[in-house]
Amino acid sequence: MSIMDKLYEKVEDRGNTCVGLDTSLDYIPLSIKRKFTNYEDMIFNFNKEIIDSTFDRVACFKLQIAYYEAQGIEGLRAYSKTLKYIKEKNSLAIGDIKRGDIKDTAKMYAKAHFEGELEADFITLNPYMGMDSIDPYLPYIKKGDKGVFILLRTSNKGAEDIQYIESKDGKRVYDIVGEKISYMGKEYIGEKGYSQVGAVVGCTHIEEGKGLRKELNNTFFLIPGYGAQGGSAKDVAIYLNKGNGGVVNSSRKIILAYKDHEGEAVGFYARQEVIRMNDEIKDALNI
Amino acid sequence: MSIMDKLYEKVEDRGNTCVGLDTSLDYIPLSIKRKFTNYEDMIFNFNKEIIDSTFDRVACFKLQIAYYEAQGIEGLRAYSKTLKYIKEKNSLAIGDIKRGDIKDTAKMYAKAHFEGELEADFITLNPYMGMDSIDPYLPYIKKGDKGVFILLRTSNKGAEDIQYIESKDGKRVYDIVGEKISYMGKEYIGEKGYSQVGAVVGCTHIEEGKGLRKELNNTFFLIPGYGAQGGSAKDVAIYLNKGNGGVVNSSRKIILAYKDHEGEAVGFYARQEVIRMNDEIKDALNI
Repeated sequence: MSIMDKLYEKVEDRGNTCVGLDTSLDYIPLSIKRKFTNYEDMIFNFNKEIIDSTFDRVACFKLQIAYYEAQGIEGLRAYSKTLKYIKEKNSLAIGDIKRGDIKDTAKMYAKAHFEGELEADFITLNPYMGMDSIDPYLPYIKKGDKGVFILLRTSNKGAEDIQYIESKDGKRVYDIVGEKISYMGKEYIGEKGYSQVGAVVGCTHIEEGKGLRKELNNTFFLIPGYGAQGGSAKDVAIYLNKGNGGVVNSSRKIILAYKDHEGEAVGFYARQEVIRMNDEIKDALNI
Repeated sequence: MSIMDKLYEKVEDRGNTCVGLDTSLDYIPLSIKRKFTNYEDMIFNFNKEIIDSTFDRVACFKLQIAYYEAQGIEGLRAYSKTLKYIKEKNSLAIGDIKRGDIKDTAKMYAKAHFEGELEADFITLNPYMGMDSIDPYLPYIKKGDKGVFILLRTSNKGAEDIQYIESKDGKRVYDIVGEKISYMGKEYIGEKGYSQVGAVVGCTHIEEGKGLRKELNNTFFLIPGYGAQGGSAKDVAIYLNKGNGGVVNSSRKIILAYKDHEGEAVGFYARQEVIRMNDEIKDALNI
């Protein structure tokens, strides 16, 4: 069973939600900050409370590494510790690192993020340097226990600058990237019909979403843009295949849910928001 | 005086060479490894020997962060220590991180790599997500003491996959990226005529090089591809403006120069190769 099969099963069992652990220091309530003397412990324990309260109802967790790098070495230790804890909980983790570089360098990134202290089940990659910048990750994918999500169509406004450039054949850059992802992934399709080479596809562009879902039938999607970024459950539904084939990331709406209430019950309100989000997506699929 | 002015002056005084500290553990000789008990010290002291032996003859140093991430937290500590040491030597450092992400995340990367433990003078960025993914670095650029190099035309074969896509107007993707870099940089042109928004342009594509150098007259180039990657000094010369306006990266040919000789004189042979490379580029400019 490949790692993408495992993710598929998590979606079946627990729902489409991917919790974005984009943990900024500002997000951590005083009650947690006061208990610890260093950033590493503050960040890790905030994450731990969210993981403990939600892991049985979510497909996976995504750690945006920029938030950890911003706290230097201590932040990266918290990143490492959080990934290990997610593994202990028998959950899955995406390292949202968006790396992309020449072959020799990519080999080092693969070693960094698929082995050792920063090891995740999946990582995100940037295709601007071309598909030979993805190749060095394939040996890990071949073994079955690692997967990647390659940036295809991102959810930000500026995405149009490059991804929307129309080629002389009438295709857009993101269409061409999609073809390459689909082609590269053909060798790594698991029991559930999805390749271990996935794609990042924002849910804020409905017509494109329909086209991409159809074209990339064996490609699992990591879907940002829901919630704080403006995408609705109905939008998300378009990017799924009968409710699977994609995980939907939400970060601030989950990890800061406690701020809409009295007290500092981080885990309790994160869980409530996860359940609400799973249900909302399920409802949208039934329409 | 902006940071790009400072880099310009270093090129005037010391030459075009940028030493790529892509320090793999395998590169470190036994004589250094034996002296230390952990990877952090081994990596840092190997780098230190090269910096001490070359800083007065090079424009700057470039640290490819992937090699450090591959050694986990210890590697990143060595990355941090090396950056600090370069600063002590009154030299300039490029953090080759090739990050690119949405606004909120980019703010975190800017904090991570322009402040605190991982602080560099310059960083490299990936434009696939569009120019709003570059905006969060501009406040640092505005202050004058930080600069960026945005991936434009990279030196690897696969670069053609995306960067070569021809648009319906007959421009290639990298031409369009170049226009955007040039436009964004206009506000940040220093005394020496170069913007603090630079570009990464591989020196392995001569005809393109001529075009890009002409079009991007105010853009400083970080030029990979020399030496181990196949580019010659003659190729490099095309990407420079009267010998300035660009730094030329070489990594293995400098940091592994000692391997072509008896003994393990890392610093001595690194310096020899730096001087040879500076001279070779100067000669090529005079032809």
